[in-house]
Amino acid sequence: MKKNKYVIAGLQMAFSSDPDKNLNKVLSFMKQAAKKGAQVICLPELYRSQYFCQKEDSKLFDLAETIPGPSTEAFSKTAKQLKVAVIVPIFEKRAPGVYHNSAVIIDADGKPLGIYRKMHIPDDPAFYEKYYFSPGDLGYKSFNTKYGKIGTLICWDQWYPEGARLTALQGATTLFYPTAIGWHPAEKERYGKAQQDSWITIQRSHAIANGTYVCSVNRIGFEQPVKEQSGIIFWGSSFICDPQGVIIAKASEDKEEIIYGEVDLKHLENIRRNWPFLRDRRIDSYNDITKRFLD
Amino acid sequence: MKKNKYVIAGLQMAFSSDPDKNLNKVLSFMKQAAKKGAQVICLPELYRSQYFCQKEDSKLFDLAETIPGPSTEAFSKTAKQLKVAVIVPIFEKRAPGVYHNSAVIIDADGKPLGIYRKMHIPDDPAFYEKYYFSPGDLGYKSFNTKYGKIGTLICWDQWYPEGARLTALQGATTLFYPTAIGWHPAEKERYGKAQQDSWITIQRSHAIANGTYVCSVNRIGFEQPVKEQSGIIFWGSSFICDPQGVIIAKASEDKEEIIYGEVDLKHLENIRRNWPFLRDRRIDSYNDITKRFLD
Repeated sequence: MKKNKYVIAGLQMAFSSDPDKNLNKVLSFMKQAAKKGAQVICLPELYRSQYFCQKEDSKLFDLAETIPGPSTEAFSKTAKQLKVAVIVPIFEKRAPGVYHNSAVIIDADGKPLGIYRKMHIPDDPAFYEKYYFSPGDLGYKSFNTKYGKIGTLICWDQWYPEGARLTALQGATTLFYPTAIGWHPAEKERYGKAQQDSWITIQRSHAIANGTYVCSVNRIGFEQPVKEQSGIIFWGSSFICDPQGVIIAKASEDKEEIIYGEVDLKHLENIRRNWPFLRDRRIDSYNDITKRFLD
Repeated sequence: MKKNKYVIAGLQMAFSSDPDKNLNKVLSFMKQAAKKGAQVICLPELYRSQYFCQKEDSKLFDLAETIPGPSTEAFSKTAKQLKVAVIVPIFEKRAPGVYHNSAVIIDADGKPLGIYRKMHIPDDPAFYEKYYFSPGDLGYKSFNTKYGKIGTLICWDQWYPEGARLTALQGATTLFYPTAIGWHPAEKERYGKAQQDSWITIQRSHAIANGTYVCSVNRIGFEQPVKEQSGIIFWGSSFICDPQGVIIAKASEDKEEIIYGEVDLKHLENIRRNWPFLRDRRIDSYNDITKRFLD
C-alpha cells in the first residue's frame, strides 16, 4: 500500500569528459540525497558525459551503452542498497546503428521498471541530436515505483504539452524532466533571461494543466568540446513545482546542488478537485492534434 | 496583401447590470482604442451583463441574444466605421433551450467572419456555467481578418493546451482569450496570488508552445448578484505576450484600461525558426489524447 506522500530529489551537477568519474560522482550525490530522505531521485540528461551533441562525430557513438549495461547495473545495485527509485538518463545503444536518448527507471528494490526513450528530438546549432538519436518508439509512460507513480520525459519533450498530457493521463503524479539546456554565450546577455523564463514557464504549465508535480533537472557548467565553437553555458535552475505550478524548490544557475520536494497526494487531489481541468477535457474535439498543420 | 504587423487591443472593463449601458460603454472604449491605432480589438467574456453564472436562475436566459442580433449589429456598424476587426463575446441564444457562451468575430468591413462557441464549460461554486451553456460544437477556429489571422477561445478554454494547439495549427498568429475570472473573497488572501499566477502562466505557455501572440482580456470589479453568496472579485490583469511568452502589455487588477500590443510576424517567424517546436511534434504518437484517462 502506498503512502500519501513521497520525497523526490533532483541532482543538479556538472560533468567531466570521464564517464566513470561521472558515474561515481552521481552515485555519491545519490547517497547524499537518500540520506536526506529522497525516495525518487532524478539525474540530468545524458549524465555520463559532457553534452557531446555540440558536434557531429561518428566516434562519439562509442559513448553509448546498452540497457542493461554499466549504468543500469551500478544504479540497480545502489538503488537496492539505499531503497530508492532512480531515473537514469543515458545514451542508449540498442543495436548497431540504432541509438536513443533514453532513461532507465529503476525501482527501490533495484529492479528496472522500464525504459523511456526521448520522443521529441531537437536539432539546432550545437544541439545536433537528430544525428545521434533515433526518435523514441515506446511512447509516453508512467512507472509504478515503490513510492509513487511517476513519469519521465526528456529535455526537448518539455516543450510539448502533448507529452506531458499523455504521461499524466497514465496516472503519473510527478513528471520528471532530465535536461541539458543552456545558453549560447553570444545570446546570453540579450536573450538569456527570456529563454530561461520560457523554459520554466512551459514546464510549470504542464503541472497546472495536468495537476501533477513537475521536477526538472538540468546540468550546470560551461562545456566547449569544439574550440572553433563558442560552447554552451548550461543554466542549471533545476526546480520542483506543485500541481498548481507553485515552485517549491529551485537551484542556482551555476552550482552543484540537490533539490528536494515532498509530493503530497492529498494536496494533488485537492488541487484537482478545485481546478477540475481533467474533468472537462473535450476529448471528442481533439482528433486533429495528430496533424502536422491544419491548412 | 497583409502587412507584417498589426496592432491588437484588449478592453479591460467593469460591467453594470444594464445591458444597453454596457454595450454603449464598450463602443466608446472601442473608439478610443481605434483612435490609438488598434486594428483587432477584443472585449471581455459575456460583456453585455454582469457575470450572471453565480446563480442558477432560468429567468437569466433572457439575457441571451441571437447571432445576428443587437450586439452583432451594433459592432458590425462600428467596426465598419472605424475599420477595425472585433471579437464580441456574448451569451448566444441559438434556439429555444439551446444557449452558448460564444464570440462573434467581425471583420474591419463590418461583416461577421464567423462564430466561436466556448468548447470547455466549467462548473464550480459561483461559476455555474454548465447550467447555462451547451458545450460548443464548432470546434477550434482561425479567422482571417483584414489585418491578420487570429483565433479566439473563451475563458475556461485557457486551461487546455489542446484548444490552443488546434487553433494555432490553423494559422492563427494571435490567440485571444476573453475571460471572466476572479477571486472568491474568502480565498483571495491565501490563494489569490498562486491562482492568478497559474492563470498567467498557463496562457503564456500557449504562446510558447505554439509560437503565437496571446491576448487575454478579463473584466474587473466586485460583483455580488446573490446577497447570500460572497460574490466574485474579478482580477483584471489582462495581458498580451509575444511568441516566447514575454509579456508586452499588462493591465492592473482593478482599473478599466485598454492594453495594446503590436503583433510582428517577422518576430513570430524568427521565434519559430529558433525554437522550432512545431517542426518536431510527434504526430504519430498523440492518438490517445482523445481518451479521458489511460488506466
